[in-house]
Amino acid sequence: MSAIVNRRDVDFMLYEMFDLEGLFATPRYAAWDRATIAAVLDTAQTIAETKYLPCAAHVDANEPHFVDGKVVMEPAVGEALKAFGEAGLFAAGFDEGVGGMQLPMLAGLMVNGMFQAANVSVANYSFLTIANAHLIEAFGSEDQKARFLGPLLEGRWFGTMCLSEPQAGSSLSDIRTRAEPLPDGSYRISGSKMWISGGDHELTENIVHLVLAKIPGGPPGVKGISLFIVPRYRVDESGAIGAWNNIALAGLNHKMGQRGTVNCLLNFGEQGDCIGHLVGEPHKGLSYMFHMMNEARVGVGHGAVSLGLAGYLHSLDYAQNRPQGRLPHDKDPASPQVAIIEHADIKRMLMAQKAAVEGATALLAYCSRLLDRQQTEGDAGELARIGLLLDILTPVAKSWPSEHCLEANKAALQILGGYGYTRDYPVERIYRDNRLNHIHEGTYAIHGIDLLGRKVRMQSGAALAALAGEIGAEIEAGQRDPELASEAAGLRSALAALEHATQAVLGCNDQNLALANATIYLDAFGHVMIGWMWLWQARVARKGLERAPADAFYAGKLAAFRYYFRYELPKVHAQFALVAALDDTCLAMTAEQFAAG
Amino acid sequence: MSAIVNRRDVDFMLYEMFDLEGLFATPRYAAWDRATIAAVLDTAQTIAETKYLPCAAHVDANEPHFVDGKVVMEPAVGEALKAFGEAGLFAAGFDEGVGGMQLPMLAGLMVNGMFQAANVSVANYSFLTIANAHLIEAFGSEDQKARFLGPLLEGRWFGTMCLSEPQAGSSLSDIRTRAEPLPDGSYRISGSKMWISGGDHELTENIVHLVLAKIPGGPPGVKGISLFIVPRYRVDESGAIGAWNNIALAGLNHKMGQRGTVNCLLNFGEQGDCIGHLVGEPHKGLSYMFHMMNEARVGVGHGAVSLGLAGYLHSLDYAQNRPQGRLPHDKDPASPQVAIIEHADIKRMLMAQKAAVEGATALLAYCSRLLDRQQTEGDAGELARIGLLLDILTPVAKSWPSEHCLEANKAALQILGGYGYTRDYPVERIYRDNRLNHIHEGTYAIHGIDLLGRKVRMQSGAALAALAGEIGAEIEAGQRDPELASEAAGLRSALAALEHATQAVLGCNDQNLALANATIYLDAFGHVMIGWMWLWQARVARKGLERAPADAFYAGKLAAFRYYFRYELPKVHAQFALVAALDDTCLAMTAEQFAAG
Repeated sequence: MSAIVNRRDVDFMLYEMFDLEGLFATPRYAAWDRATIAAVLDTAQTIAETKYLPCAAHVDANEPHFVDGKVVMEPAVGEALKAFGEAGLFAAGFDEGVGGMQLPMLAGLMVNGMFQAANVSVANYSFLTIANAHLIEAFGSEDQKARFLGPLLEGRWFGTMCLSEPQAGSSLSDIRTRAEPLPDGSYRISGSKMWISGGDHELTENIVHLVLAKIPGGPPGVKGISLFIVPRYRVDESGAIGAWNNIALAGLNHKMGQRGTVNCLLNFGEQGDCIGHLVGEPHKGLSYMFHMMNEARVGVGHGAVSLGLAGYLHSLDYAQNRPQGRLPHDKDPASPQVAIIEHADIKRMLMAQKAAVEGATALLAYCSRLLDRQQTEGDAGELARIGLLLDILTPVAKSWPSEHCLEANKAALQILGGYGYTRDYPVERIYRDNRLNHIHEGTYAIHGIDLLGRKVRMQSGAALAALAGEIGAEIEAGQRDPELASEAAGLRSALAALEHATQAVLGCNDQNLALANATIYLDAFGHVMIGWMWLWQARVARKGLERAPADAFYAGKLAAFRYYFRYELPKVHAQFALVAALDDTCLAMTAEQFAAG
Repeated sequence: MSAIVNRRDVDFMLYEMFDLEGLFATPRYAAWDRATIAAVLDTAQTIAETKYLPCAAHVDANEPHFVDGKVVMEPAVGEALKAFGEAGLFAAGFDEGVGGMQLPMLAGLMVNGMFQAANVSVANYSFLTIANAHLIEAFGSEDQKARFLGPLLEGRWFGTMCLSEPQAGSSLSDIRTRAEPLPDGSYRISGSKMWISGGDHELTENIVHLVLAKIPGGPPGVKGISLFIVPRYRVDESGAIGAWNNIALAGLNHKMGQRGTVNCLLNFGEQGDCIGHLVGEPHKGLSYMFHMMNEARVGVGHGAVSLGLAGYLHSLDYAQNRPQGRLPHDKDPASPQVAIIEHADIKRMLMAQKAAVEGATALLAYCSRLLDRQQTEGDAGELARIGLLLDILTPVAKSWPSEHCLEANKAALQILGGYGYTRDYPVERIYRDNRLNHIHEGTYAIHGIDLLGRKVRMQSGAALAALAGEIGAEIEAGQRDPELASEAAGLRSALAALEHATQAVLGCNDQNLALANATIYLDAFGHVMIGWMWLWQARVARKGLERAPADAFYAGKLAAFRYYFRYELPKVHAQFALVAALDDTCLAMTAEQFAAG
């Protein structure tokens, strides 16, 4: 099997679970069929396996550094991204009208996953560029699109997102970067931006920064944030590159992982005018940014899943080939050692990885399918329902994998034992890489507050009601199959605990107390969603076994399904009980009590 | 507060929890009192803070490497260990008769913890040397002690433990290193040893390897393993250093963390005779090694705790000083940002760390106190009971911190956000360092099998009965205090679940099935032990509050106690239910089913 993808599982998700063929029947995706999708996947897999994967350890060990004021990095990074661009993959998800392939998001998720699994540090450059281009496509003026979109979609220019600042971190309402209007309609940008991935490098002719800044005199807080296109080199009306735009690299961050992705502190306009172009209307920057967030966050969540998958596939291969020890019943030291996959705890750690990775893949595929339906659905009511489902699932889709696929990586490392702890094997790197996903694009805590403070409350609980409706339908289907009925009942009970905890929180008027255990709520909520996905996978696998009773793939799905319901889902009851109790143990602890020991 | 120790908590453990003063009343420890213990702790803290801590990041970033066939490392490593040796700390735990301080183990644990928290990679050299010297002291001949013990206790020579081999890993019955008898009573050693920490370096005049090897013609498996002293340079009868002993450095392992500890593949006797000296009797090597294991494993567990503490203290300091964001009820963007310690989820992550670290510290202190009682107790029946308690608690004391204090480090990193993910702050290094503790000195899985397959069964369950007796007494004490009664009842219920799961497993005759969920049993078992320790700490804190009602330290202890019983202990019920059900979901999964996806 490939080290980065299980194509059988990809096909299972695309065709048996999420009906990609149904999309081929829509006008938007009518040009696609199974053969052309497979061709794109084949191309992506070849590039990922031959250009991204082989240099991953080398890129990790030789991170970008300064030489004569420029960022120097391993040539393999540029070569990999060049191959990605030459295959047209920057534009894969874009409309044909702007030169794209109009690839369904669901298929695009699987394409991207291979690059993230192979070498996430390199994949980040394209991921950010694509997100940047999507924003300009959605909200830029015709002139802005004409100047910037083409080079981004060809991969000749890369893009960034400049949100955080050293003093503000996650608190965007406190950003200080200023944008002063100039007579020609452009803006003079000044300020510092922190944690800018791809912020400075020589990989491309230009870098297009999307910068959040405040126009003087605007409203305070997040309501006064505007969005600007700020290129590294100025771009004239013909699209030609001009003078340096006074964006100075003030420092490189040296990270635990994802080391191939240059990460910068940038100073805008310190040495001279830095010109920015307002996107859309003033003071609406954050809403534009958030418009793209569902998609970006699904992508980050899938990055965590893809690293989980890479660790799983590597540790599975190792476990099949490493002989060591004997089973408990065998007391004869002269008997041959067994492959470690025969040991119960190795199986448990493989199963935990499989359950997390394939469960989360299904959730992200489900979300991607919703994004595709947003493009193809004509009914306004149904569109609204799809929007609600995406809104409530996005914090979960981003966060659950960042915790549980990181834990999967921990298990992968453990399976390799001492070897796993060395840099001779990829699992420790994958584990380091994945640790970022808990932090960026909103921390676990921030998504917890988003879910419990906003998403389950919006429109009088309409999003949660829509979601419960979807899950309820799957439970009912499960209860009709004796092989699935017990687990279906378990999911019903978990969903009831979720709803009970939600109601308890909604009944609390003390906002600080209500959100005190939001992270735990998010985690348990995610566990229920993954349970839903496993019940669904099991139902589909049961159908598969009717056609092919000896198929080990389907048997493995059912085993992972049972694992999840026996080993994982029962954990949520203690979590929801805690949330429902509005426990204030942590909230009541004072800084003085901590500092005393 | 110090970055490596909370001296208030150390005193709480030594004097309020574990009655170190009671040891001063015994003949063995009569020379000690609170003042002299404090002086040793002060000395250790000064050395750890001035020699170990400042170079920790530098040593991590510049790992040992080969130059002209020799291992070169940062000079700071040698300087730190020199200061440790000059303070007499190598000999601290040894008898006065061999030049030691006869320091109680309980106090020694706290001394060692400061070095582990400050710079575990450097502390490993002394830790291994001390363990090595303990083994020679316990089982070596008078001649061997005369030759080797003095230089080890002075820190002039360092020691190693050579167990693993490339093809054998954790499976010691499969080691192949040979020891052929020579006419003069010594042995010719040949073979390869893997993962040898401190295996080769220029820090000391000599290195004393303790090597497990097989004498040809002996019994197969672990019953044919003997133990040898194998010095890097031969040592004559006068103790003088002679010729190189043909131990070749065959490779350095490049690890994820603990990078300052050189870790080697060694080839013994490849280029000429490598002479070893048999310790004790032939074929008893493993029993000698295991005799010292209780102590060594308590030390490894405490290493994990100390890293947990270092991360906790750092993230606590950061959280008190980093302003960011506002509380949920505050919607005014013009209001000042709060220190992040005010945010509920930051408090939760600090509390999780405090609960894990201080709970585990108590368990390791309890075990150390038992080790001290082995030295001072005269009653044979009580000695036997102490031995049983140590036997059953050792796998827990080693393993629980390696999982839960690693999770504590994950939380510390999260509190620092993006900064925590960079190498500019120590938390990512601490997290990498701690990841090893799950693997070495027996993996989590191996300790699970030890606990469920051996320790709870030995002497018809006498060890578990002794332990349940201790816990039961604490529960009864807790139930007499209305402030603790509810948690005491929770602990009783958790202990009942533990005992029920144990009985279910003991009733299963299929050894493979019985041990299939041993790791989960170990984890939940550990959670009950830490619950016991928190109930105990709470009882002592309640006494403290009677004397000093406004003392924030005691209030913090009670809050962490409540946290543990509300957030952590309830998890064990799902775990024990799974174990009791003899679930075979993982065991039944085949390699083919995994490989199919």
